[in-house]
Amino acid sequence: MTVWEPPIREYDFLFNEVFNAIESIEGLGFEDFDADYLAMLTEGWGMHAKEVWLPINELGDKVGLKFEDGNISMPQEFKDAYRKGIDEGWLATACKPEHGGMGVPTFFSSVTWSEFGTSACMALSVLPALSIGVYEVLTSNGRQDLVDYFAPSLASGELAGTMCLTEPHAGTDLGIITTRAEPEDDGSYRISGTKIFITYGEHDMTDNIVHLVLAKAPGGPEGTRGISLFLVPKYLPAEWESGGVEGISHDLVPEHNGVTCSGSEEKMGLHASPTCVMNFDDSVGWLVGPLHGGMPLMFQMMNRERLATGIMGLGLAEIAYQNALAWSRDRRQGRDLRGIRDPNKPADNILVHPDVRRMLLEAKVNNEGCRALAVWTGILIDQMNSDDPEVAEPAEALVALFTPIIKAHFTDLGCETCSTCMQVMGGAGYCSEFGVEQFYRDVRISKIWEGTNGIQALDLAGRKITQNMGKNLRHLMWPLTEFIEKNRDIPEMGEFNKPLHQGVRGLQQITLLMIAEGMANPHFLAAGATDYCRYFGNVLLGYMWAKMAKVCLERQGEPFYDAKLASARFFFKRIYPETISLAAKIQSGPKTLMDYPAEMF
Amino acid sequence: MTVWEPPIREYDFLFNEVFNAIESIEGLGFEDFDADYLAMLTEGWGMHAKEVWLPINELGDKVGLKFEDGNISMPQEFKDAYRKGIDEGWLATACKPEHGGMGVPTFFSSVTWSEFGTSACMALSVLPALSIGVYEVLTSNGRQDLVDYFAPSLASGELAGTMCLTEPHAGTDLGIITTRAEPEDDGSYRISGTKIFITYGEHDMTDNIVHLVLAKAPGGPEGTRGISLFLVPKYLPAEWESGGVEGISHDLVPEHNGVTCSGSEEKMGLHASPTCVMNFDDSVGWLVGPLHGGMPLMFQMMNRERLATGIMGLGLAEIAYQNALAWSRDRRQGRDLRGIRDPNKPADNILVHPDVRRMLLEAKVNNEGCRALAVWTGILIDQMNSDDPEVAEPAEALVALFTPIIKAHFTDLGCETCSTCMQVMGGAGYCSEFGVEQFYRDVRISKIWEGTNGIQALDLAGRKITQNMGKNLRHLMWPLTEFIEKNRDIPEMGEFNKPLHQGVRGLQQITLLMIAEGMANPHFLAAGATDYCRYFGNVLLGYMWAKMAKVCLERQGEPFYDAKLASARFFFKRIYPETISLAAKIQSGPKTLMDYPAEMF
Repeated sequence: MTVWEPPIREYDFLFNEVFNAIESIEGLGFEDFDADYLAMLTEGWGMHAKEVWLPINELGDKVGLKFEDGNISMPQEFKDAYRKGIDEGWLATACKPEHGGMGVPTFFSSVTWSEFGTSACMALSVLPALSIGVYEVLTSNGRQDLVDYFAPSLASGELAGTMCLTEPHAGTDLGIITTRAEPEDDGSYRISGTKIFITYGEHDMTDNIVHLVLAKAPGGPEGTRGISLFLVPKYLPAEWESGGVEGISHDLVPEHNGVTCSGSEEKMGLHASPTCVMNFDDSVGWLVGPLHGGMPLMFQMMNRERLATGIMGLGLAEIAYQNALAWSRDRRQGRDLRGIRDPNKPADNILVHPDVRRMLLEAKVNNEGCRALAVWTGILIDQMNSDDPEVAEPAEALVALFTPIIKAHFTDLGCETCSTCMQVMGGAGYCSEFGVEQFYRDVRISKIWEGTNGIQALDLAGRKITQNMGKNLRHLMWPLTEFIEKNRDIPEMGEFNKPLHQGVRGLQQITLLMIAEGMANPHFLAAGATDYCRYFGNVLLGYMWAKMAKVCLERQGEPFYDAKLASARFFFKRIYPETISLAAKIQSGPKTLMDYPAEMF
Repeated sequence: MTVWEPPIREYDFLFNEVFNAIESIEGLGFEDFDADYLAMLTEGWGMHAKEVWLPINELGDKVGLKFEDGNISMPQEFKDAYRKGIDEGWLATACKPEHGGMGVPTFFSSVTWSEFGTSACMALSVLPALSIGVYEVLTSNGRQDLVDYFAPSLASGELAGTMCLTEPHAGTDLGIITTRAEPEDDGSYRISGTKIFITYGEHDMTDNIVHLVLAKAPGGPEGTRGISLFLVPKYLPAEWESGGVEGISHDLVPEHNGVTCSGSEEKMGLHASPTCVMNFDDSVGWLVGPLHGGMPLMFQMMNRERLATGIMGLGLAEIAYQNALAWSRDRRQGRDLRGIRDPNKPADNILVHPDVRRMLLEAKVNNEGCRALAVWTGILIDQMNSDDPEVAEPAEALVALFTPIIKAHFTDLGCETCSTCMQVMGGAGYCSEFGVEQFYRDVRISKIWEGTNGIQALDLAGRKITQNMGKNLRHLMWPLTEFIEKNRDIPEMGEFNKPLHQGVRGLQQITLLMIAEGMANPHFLAAGATDYCRYFGNVLLGYMWAKMAKVCLERQGEPFYDAKLASARFFFKRIYPETISLAAKIQSGPKTLMDYPAEMF
């Protein structure tokens, strides 16, 4: 029943008209990659997602997975769709050609790919997204024999990967995990412990699964600095006994590697995405990266997943919007307050009503702003690999800054937008038949995954702002101030540039306040963090809208560009003003929170 | 797994310390009703809801109803719990003693009853709530023989009632319904048509069901002014053929009255509350109220249901809060930023973290504010029946004003609060085992039921404000301004009274703007309606908090009152500032909405 078209024209606009994506990755090893190839990829993946993934999405929700005797079986339709993705190479866009991947830039593989995949079938999309995360950690930090053995099949999708962090008593606070790793003489380890909330921890989509497991090896310090990262396969390669896997075959020995799944959570949504309790019982694992140095690696993967999770908010918000819009064009209730529009029909369609337009535009305009920021961030991630420090350093600074904002703000907006779109559809929105209620349930996990949005806000306010003597923020403020300055005297830009300028000034003042007060009282920073993150998100989306408006002002008269200008106006008049209230809340400080007696909650 | 305690102390505070509920209904026919009786009722119903209703709530969600061959069977546990409610008289608190009810004031029957019922088991609570709505319309407008025949069994719960408004093509826009009513010589009518989204339209909780059906009889004008209201039972009373039912027995003839259920919606939540497609095929019905005068009666019922629906938002927000709080006391992650609290434990409980406190206080403080406004509104509904016009007229004006705000703002907050409480619990919040995800799904319908919140906002901005030359608003502004004036020189009240004063001034300015601009352009009113409704809701909750603070200032030193003062501070510093942004959005007018080209959405 649901409709969805991949927003190809939107990406074309962002890639080629707003950001000059191809130019911006020149000299970064993507020599064969040009605008035509990018367009082909976008259309090809959009088509695959629509034709292969979208049709199984509702089935995944209704049928879901089956957990029995420690095994999880997925719907046959999911296995078929996943196999088609392997065969056509769509799961490996991010991986290096040497491992059989496409090696395309991040702004496609982590942005466009993630958005389309999530819109079409979020429950399926997280499986390859996790595998790619494991692939990246492994290929940048792993022993060569492990890379050679595991990377190509992770890249193609033949092998699935997971990340195992959380334990029953330790989620946000990883310093207190109890999973142990005991070293063996051959250089491998034996891992024992229980992990929970492991997405695709067990399933029958692939013959084998490799887990990246956080565990504590003997001799390490307390807390997170004593954590190491281990690669633990569900089935061991044959002849692994040498301690390594160099040159050995992909035959599997029949026994498990002591890795068992003892449960699968019943969840509100994502019914076709397993969430497992995983037990490691003396399981063979290999160290990845330095001993007691697992956390930075896990953060490397986590940061990628945080971007991907943010884009999940966008992906579900986009398909929810498209369905609410289709509904509002068909549904006829009441008349335009200023006169009958369709006299031959018993009522006008609901798109004539200001409040329906308000809801749809909030959805559309936030989606388009988020997509722009996501594309820019994708480009910056690619630029982090530049040999030129003048490219790499600001890119790294901005990615550090944007990651928690994208994760938190995009998923907050994603949940709000799915709710708004359900509201446009009234009672139908609440009924399973019309699809949006699934998006509303599925998207909700994105505010929790990869560190709750509260944790993201603390990462932003307590770490990313002050990191390296405030360098991250300076790398944003320089180009942003320059942009505002350049447009100050262009009259047509005034309606976008002025509120942006005000917002940036406000952001600077609030940042100074948070830092100054936070030095004496860390509760001040923590109390304002969530509102600060949302304020910051609005300023960044304001920057994106001003930037897009600038491009479109030169192309007025064509409906696409006129509509973008109308979107920019809506953003600054109807969404952006929430910053005023956020500032007031931040300024009120932690007193009302911390003075409240704990026993009186 | 879920915990819940009825908030008895909260109601005691509101009834006896804030509003003097007993005094305020003196002379209104509740002579035997005193504070002790009220306390007994509150405790008794709280106990019943906790012991009989709460234990079946999760089961209702998991097992749900069964639809087969036009019949809906409910879980046996639901039938048992409902029967217990009948036997102990808890379903009839609102009904008149002459019909076997308790005849208690509305501030109990529609507020306390609804909140506890919804918290404990929303899916069950809507059945008696609808029956009472039908009871009230029937007893105030129906033919005496119909009242005599149906009212006592509606009151006890032996008979269930529904309201049948929506048709496949007509929801918000009831003027275009096509259900027909043909008059018969004996004074009855034959009703034919299809109704959808009929809550408890079919079930086996009672032997019979009566439907209040909107239909068009011949000779009426077009649109809503041609709508009449009919009482249509599922089974006809034996010997009804006389055209009346006076004095006849409650035996049922075995055939249906042409009332069939052809489908039951699969919904996101409320799995144990049937949502039916109902077909009326030449079904016998009796006119209730005047011919072609059905809409005002339906609104009478609807207004009652709108209050009840608003309180559903509160009920689910309250149980979500209690569960998130219990979780946050147990869950240990990380350390207080200002130093270790529990050195003997591996981590402090999460209640030490400012952002967790922020989330819990947003939930708690909004719940307490809403409860206060609900109790006041309940008292006002009782006072509408006063013979003294100086009591009745302001009461009627305020109820007219508060109804859309309670429906829209309480349910918006209810959804936000359930989400916030899920967030406090992290991954556990998303898993079925912990209950909050059910509240999150169940509560979402409350923003749609009884007219979407957008419709409520239009009712407020487009009707309730200007009605009777602005009388409704004047009846609020008089006591509110007097309150502010009285407290102006009390230094301890300053932190509450000053922001309240600012908010009220802002409300007056925005109201004037909306009225002035709305005269020339109705889109201005409609474009700002939702934000206006939320602004208004905040000002009313601000009034409630200032009023409660005033009471508590005199009782400082006791933890209960000190906590209430801390809640009031939190409200004005951390919630109320959203009014500033709302004002900015309203002032921006309809241009950004209405200029957007329809084809470019």
